[in-house]
Amino acid sequence: MKSVDDSDGHSISLEHLKGVERLAIIGTGLIGASFAAALKKNGYKGHIAGCARTANTLSKALELGVIDSATTDYTEVVAGADVVMLAVPMLAMRPALEAIKPALSAGCIVTDGGSVKGPFIADARAVLDDCTHVVPAHPIAGKEYSGVGAADAGLYRGHTVILTPLEESHPDAVLTITQLWRACGAFVETLDWQTHDRILSATSHMPHVVAFAVVDMLARSPACEDVFRYSAGGFRDFTRIASGDPVMWRDICLSNGDEIVEILDSLTAQLSHVRDLIGQGDAENLQALFTNAKTTRDKLIDKYDRAKRAQQS
Amino acid sequence: MKSVDDSDGHSISLEHLKGVERLAIIGTGLIGASFAAALKKNGYKGHIAGCARTANTLSKALELGVIDSATTDYTEVVAGADVVMLAVPMLAMRPALEAIKPALSAGCIVTDGGSVKGPFIADARAVLDDCTHVVPAHPIAGKEYSGVGAADAGLYRGHTVILTPLEESHPDAVLTITQLWRACGAFVETLDWQTHDRILSATSHMPHVVAFAVVDMLARSPACEDVFRYSAGGFRDFTRIASGDPVMWRDICLSNGDEIVEILDSLTAQLSHVRDLIGQGDAENLQALFTNAKTTRDKLIDKYDRAKRAQQS
Repeated sequence: MKSVDDSDGHSISLEHLKGVERLAIIGTGLIGASFAAALKKNGYKGHIAGCARTANTLSKALELGVIDSATTDYTEVVAGADVVMLAVPMLAMRPALEAIKPALSAGCIVTDGGSVKGPFIADARAVLDDCTHVVPAHPIAGKEYSGVGAADAGLYRGHTVILTPLEESHPDAVLTITQLWRACGAFVETLDWQTHDRILSATSHMPHVVAFAVVDMLARSPACEDVFRYSAGGFRDFTRIASGDPVMWRDICLSNGDEIVEILDSLTAQLSHVRDLIGQGDAENLQALFTNAKTTRDKLIDKYDRAKRAQQS
Repeated sequence: MKSVDDSDGHSISLEHLKGVERLAIIGTGLIGASFAAALKKNGYKGHIAGCARTANTLSKALELGVIDSATTDYTEVVAGADVVMLAVPMLAMRPALEAIKPALSAGCIVTDGGSVKGPFIADARAVLDDCTHVVPAHPIAGKEYSGVGAADAGLYRGHTVILTPLEESHPDAVLTITQLWRACGAFVETLDWQTHDRILSATSHMPHVVAFAVVDMLARSPACEDVFRYSAGGFRDFTRIASGDPVMWRDICLSNGDEIVEILDSLTAQLSHVRDLIGQGDAENLQALFTNAKTTRDKLIDKYDRAKRAQQS
């Protein structure tokens, strides 16, 4: 059986996952389909059942070979599943949980790939009678292309997946989800959901909102064409995340609104401060601010790049 | 003699540049040293003299073979030069012009690589008696690494260089600078400086200021380490330009302050608007804004990528 390296540099075998004979993926977009593709590529031999809203998405997923069976029916996809992964936009999580609940087998592990953990936990607690088999997860990886067509077996390789287990989450369920993600080549870490949602508002949600806001503003300017015409790699990279899926990001904003509003308020204050430094021609403080940003970024990007390389070698 | 393709797909020979027997580069950082490296790589046979503030930079430039002679003396470097390129931070332009003025040969073309054109033109008009041989230029290319060590003969290949000639700029001088940039593999376009400085404030200056401001803000937060630890490609790309040279960007902000302040004010208003949409849970308008950003970016990135590929083929 094929095996992959886990984050400690040891080899873990997908044999350990023989308890997971049937895996159901609800939502075969970028996140769900890449998870299925990664498992298949790394030797997972069980059955992967896929569920999506449209037959078109499902036939593409079948054609790409990332799922073994396809249905638009929530109860059908989870019937007999050992693990169910919800990979739908945040606001679709609760309806999906409600739809699958009657068909869940006893002991079936329910996990997700959502970018905000508090609301998923609240949804699970509200819908399911027992959350001992719920293991919330968030892979810190993505790209600007969405949908099953963007599925990528290497999407999670070398990336971190954060688990935010509930107090009552069963250790065996946490271990199974950990092994599934390690089989995708990811490093698995654990955080409480409050810390996760706060950190991710800074590292992911706020930058996406800013990129969307900048591009929308420029798109409505008469100079819009010229801005893109006379732009280079800096602008391209800065705005790359504004090509993300609008519904997914709308849902993230609505699900983590308090944290995102708070950090946007801080950012607005910071931008007013920098604007004043520029308006006043305050060379010294402007240079100090730019230098602090550059040295911090250079140091920490380098530090965590080295840490990841060390984990991988 | 080696020749390169110009932007119309025809071949231009560096023979046309035989009037440029000696080229002086003032400032052998990323921009100046890459210009010299690109010319040498593409067959320029004349002498390239380099001037920098430190002997260390100059010995590195000599070692890398991007310049043929080195000096820290402004008058020495321009003596006998047919073209002088100023590749120093914006606020160092005027002192450099003052320093080279006494030693400039009659008819020597003076050009630059600065990111703001109005102030360079004002500096040239204030310092030089005659601006018929002044040809302001701005290569729309860069990377987050600065200094001579980052010099890259391919930096300008496929990129746009904007010339903003003065009314009195002699057509032959404009042609020579055009040919030099085309010899670097760049596409040359012409704009008036007002349009240049406005467009670049949106496409380059504002994004850099925002990236610096975001990283400085996060750097001062207690969660700073975790932000970098739990970040992925989106954050990395969004903040890449915050690793730019602080002095260069300080000078750009101080040189194009009016335009940058204006667009930062628009951005602050836009961010307050998006913040309110999130705070109010306005799903419809949030999705519409994100969709407008995504569709505009996808369409225009694709359009100008295709245009560049067509020019190059």
